[in-house]
Amino acid sequence: MARLSHSIAILTKLQVSCIFILLTTVIPNVEARTHNLTWKVTYEYKYLDCFKKLAIAINGQTPGPHINATRGDTIIVTVLNNLLMENVAIHWHGIRQLGNGWNDGTDSVNQCAAMPGEYFTYQFVVDQAGTYMYHSHYGMQKSSGLYGLITVNPLPGEETPSHFEDREIILSDWYHDSAYEHAVKLSSKPYVWIGEPQSLLINGRGRYQCELLGVSNHDQCNGSSTECSPDVVKVKPKQTYRFRIASLTSLSALSFQIEGHKMTVVETDGMHVVPFVIDNLYIYSGETYSVLVTTDQNHSRNYGISINVIARTPETPNGFAILNYEPNPVDAQNLPQPPPGPLWNDTDSQRNQSLAIKGLRDTPYLVALKLNIPDVFDPTPSPEDYDHSYNIYEIPENTNATTSTSIYRLPFNKTVDIILQNAKSMGGDSETHPWHLHGHNFWVLGFGKDKFNPSTASLNLENPIMKNTVPLFPYGWTALRFRTDNPGIWLFHCHIEAHFYLGMLVLFESGSDMVTKPPQQNMGCGKTKNYINP
Amino acid sequence: MARLSHSIAILTKLQVSCIFILLTTVIPNVEARTHNLTWKVTYEYKYLDCFKKLAIAINGQTPGPHINATRGDTIIVTVLNNLLMENVAIHWHGIRQLGNGWNDGTDSVNQCAAMPGEYFTYQFVVDQAGTYMYHSHYGMQKSSGLYGLITVNPLPGEETPSHFEDREIILSDWYHDSAYEHAVKLSSKPYVWIGEPQSLLINGRGRYQCELLGVSNHDQCNGSSTECSPDVVKVKPKQTYRFRIASLTSLSALSFQIEGHKMTVVETDGMHVVPFVIDNLYIYSGETYSVLVTTDQNHSRNYGISINVIARTPETPNGFAILNYEPNPVDAQNLPQPPPGPLWNDTDSQRNQSLAIKGLRDTPYLVALKLNIPDVFDPTPSPEDYDHSYNIYEIPENTNATTSTSIYRLPFNKTVDIILQNAKSMGGDSETHPWHLHGHNFWVLGFGKDKFNPSTASLNLENPIMKNTVPLFPYGWTALRFRTDNPGIWLFHCHIEAHFYLGMLVLFESGSDMVTKPPQQNMGCGKTKNYINP
Repeated sequence: MARLSHSIAILTKLQVSCIFILLTTVIPNVEARTHNLTWKVTYEYKYLDCFKKLAIAINGQTPGPHINATRGDTIIVTVLNNLLMENVAIHWHGIRQLGNGWNDGTDSVNQCAAMPGEYFTYQFVVDQAGTYMYHSHYGMQKSSGLYGLITVNPLPGEETPSHFEDREIILSDWYHDSAYEHAVKLSSKPYVWIGEPQSLLINGRGRYQCELLGVSNHDQCNGSSTECSPDVVKVKPKQTYRFRIASLTSLSALSFQIEGHKMTVVETDGMHVVPFVIDNLYIYSGETYSVLVTTDQNHSRNYGISINVIARTPETPNGFAILNYEPNPVDAQNLPQPPPGPLWNDTDSQRNQSLAIKGLRDTPYLVALKLNIPDVFDPTPSPEDYDHSYNIYEIPENTNATTSTSIYRLPFNKTVDIILQNAKSMGGDSETHPWHLHGHNFWVLGFGKDKFNPSTASLNLENPIMKNTVPLFPYGWTALRFRTDNPGIWLFHCHIEAHFYLGMLVLFESGSDMVTKPPQQNMGCGKTKNYINP
Repeated sequence: MARLSHSIAILTKLQVSCIFILLTTVIPNVEARTHNLTWKVTYEYKYLDCFKKLAIAINGQTPGPHINATRGDTIIVTVLNNLLMENVAIHWHGIRQLGNGWNDGTDSVNQCAAMPGEYFTYQFVVDQAGTYMYHSHYGMQKSSGLYGLITVNPLPGEETPSHFEDREIILSDWYHDSAYEHAVKLSSKPYVWIGEPQSLLINGRGRYQCELLGVSNHDQCNGSSTECSPDVVKVKPKQTYRFRIASLTSLSALSFQIEGHKMTVVETDGMHVVPFVIDNLYIYSGETYSVLVTTDQNHSRNYGISINVIARTPETPNGFAILNYEPNPVDAQNLPQPPPGPLWNDTDSQRNQSLAIKGLRDTPYLVALKLNIPDVFDPTPSPEDYDHSYNIYEIPENTNATTSTSIYRLPFNKTVDIILQNAKSMGGDSETHPWHLHGHNFWVLGFGKDKFNPSTASLNLENPIMKNTVPLFPYGWTALRFRTDNPGIWLFHCHIEAHFYLGMLVLFESGSDMVTKPPQQNMGCGKTKNYINP
């Protein structure tokens, strides 16, 4: 259950003392490729978790095709909307779109969605190596399966871990109701909560217990469909692999685990991490990670990969895949036992893992950026002040959620600090929210319990990681910093689809006077029907 | 089952000998009203047939509000699209939109659909008394319940039957699948047929046997919901009422019947009929009728009203409502027995009823129009010739359906004859198709069995009725005539939602050089995103 108003206070701090150096990313003079892609977006019946449901496919696939590029490449994607009765916009999650805000793919912010029968051509440069993703940013459409992974490889010689072979892992959750029904429920007054997902998916594959439906309708639920057999991740013994893991869940925060294998975290959201070893990875919707996995276990058998819900009472069965040590066969009758996963409500463990993520200093991009950071975090309130007496453990007295169409207008090329403060919601609880920023990375300065106190808060100004998505823990705070170095208007929002849809978002504007005039293909809705092109 | 290509041949005949008098409709100098309506279009969970399903509502109602106007009135409807993820366009079915084609409400023909959050304002004059309707003309959205009735009353003294009290009857069918799923099925290659509707509705109320679902889930199917109790039509004994009946079915042709009461047909599609008496009314999707009903039966009890499927093997239970002789109570435990209805496959009876519909000569509008009709029907082929050797009883050899974006370009202010010829479809059958013309009425010159033969066909040139929707019977033909007196581009199509969606339509263009430039609100999709407004 989520009631959202007043559960978060956002503080922005405009640091006028910072140095005015425009961020530039240096791409060595290596010949860049252009990837010309044509994507036909359709609804198709899929048995992703054995239950038959309309899923959105790109060229027939759910999840969509993997974009595998190298830093400096140009991606051109022509998205043809064949959804028949639903519009489309696709967001390139984690791609900063420097000076290229018209291609961010956010309906109602950067563009009019493409109507059925129309196409929209996105063009952008992938200027940072790392693991990214794309997904629909129209209505609640992401939860219909319109998403996929983007790998941006470093240029030759740029990165150490890049010589490991990659394995791609897309995590998601899956509802049997349509995105339509969810949108209607959440838009009702009073709103109706959408409940928990029926399944967790690894690379688009889950397993719903058809027996639960009380009918043996093999058309509606088919346990023997090949579409819902577990994903098989093939590895060879005694190798180290780089698992690129992205969470595209609608609701669920997850723990990811491989039976008997430790993982070394080396990257998140495109940034190098001071490596650290974990048994399980906590991953929140909108985040990506690279972890190194060495296949050093008994090679005569296979191993279970599992995901389980954390940070809310689990009502969805764990997701499952198979780590297949080649050349072992995959025996459907004798599958490996998946790890049970950690306790869902061990918030300390979750926060500690987030705190363990430090930026790796040798990243040229990060170092370059660091030059612009003032040394001292100034915790005085932002010009948009907030209620300092706010009690985060009490349900707010004003139970009316408020909405507005206003935006935060920020001076260009300044440093902005944000404190996200989690409080008791109108539903009486306090949940974990993954917050995602478009068009920028931010430094993650810290996570804390209880109410943020500027005098005592412990902040990492030494080696903060840069990310684009970060969790905000129950009754806790998260401190972020970013540079307003990308002209345009950008979303900052909770990446839980329902929370976003209910309005857990703000818009940051900066330098929009530098933005080019709107391309024609971005228009056609609302008042741009009346736009007179000179 | 429907396979559509080659099942219909359309012949157009341009009669160059006709007199060039522009049609004008004389409206006496009585003060006309303007109806300013604001419609908020939403998806809402409804139990229309006891099964819970998202239905489209206008200001909360499904079917939508009744528009009750008088000839000469101006209707202004601002349609606010609150569907969240689906676009909207509303067609004013039977309203000719003389010189006003931008307001016909047909997506992709006259306008870009309004996107979620947008509004579209329709404005038109109702220049003919009669019974009309409105419904969505976007994708397959009509079948989600976006429809309603329009009554246009005559001016004082204009019409005889108008002093009877009205009762409104909206007939429809209802699927438990969404319009979305239907569109996906029909767009598949090979296409998947959508099957028969689960229920028939009278004034938005039907009754599905929840037990058939094999589960007792009262949230999903609630037999005691008040939304699916039968509609109660209240009457007083010894009165004569005018029942205005409109069929908005997606698929089903229907027979409408009132236990123990005869009906006198007096109007169809806004035109007076030479009155004739029937036991049951055959009504096809897109048609409207006025029938007079005298409450001359035993007034101590109520009577059943029923509808049943005709023209295809019935797999949908009959629909039911109650004729309540006031002040009798309506006893839910002791409902009247509905009439069983006629045989579904008595095509002769159905064709005979269509043939019995004759235009009433004293209609001033019809008389005025008749002056423009050449006396002789010329059956020579149209410039768009057709295959005279076509065998209507054989499945066509070419089983590939063809589509095109071409239009019939017709000279302005001419008389056009159309012969609709029904043949064996690729599915091996021949079905009844109700054809509807936008922007015009047509004279119904005749119906015949077998292949149309210009030398022997019997045509009514004496008192043909004018209609906007007309059935085409299995292995038969229907002859129509209309004047190209309304500048624009207009749809002519089968009114069965799935057939229309599969492409059973043509476009007639005439006099489009006289059409004003596109209003801004009609644009914003496809290439009109690039439209540069001077």
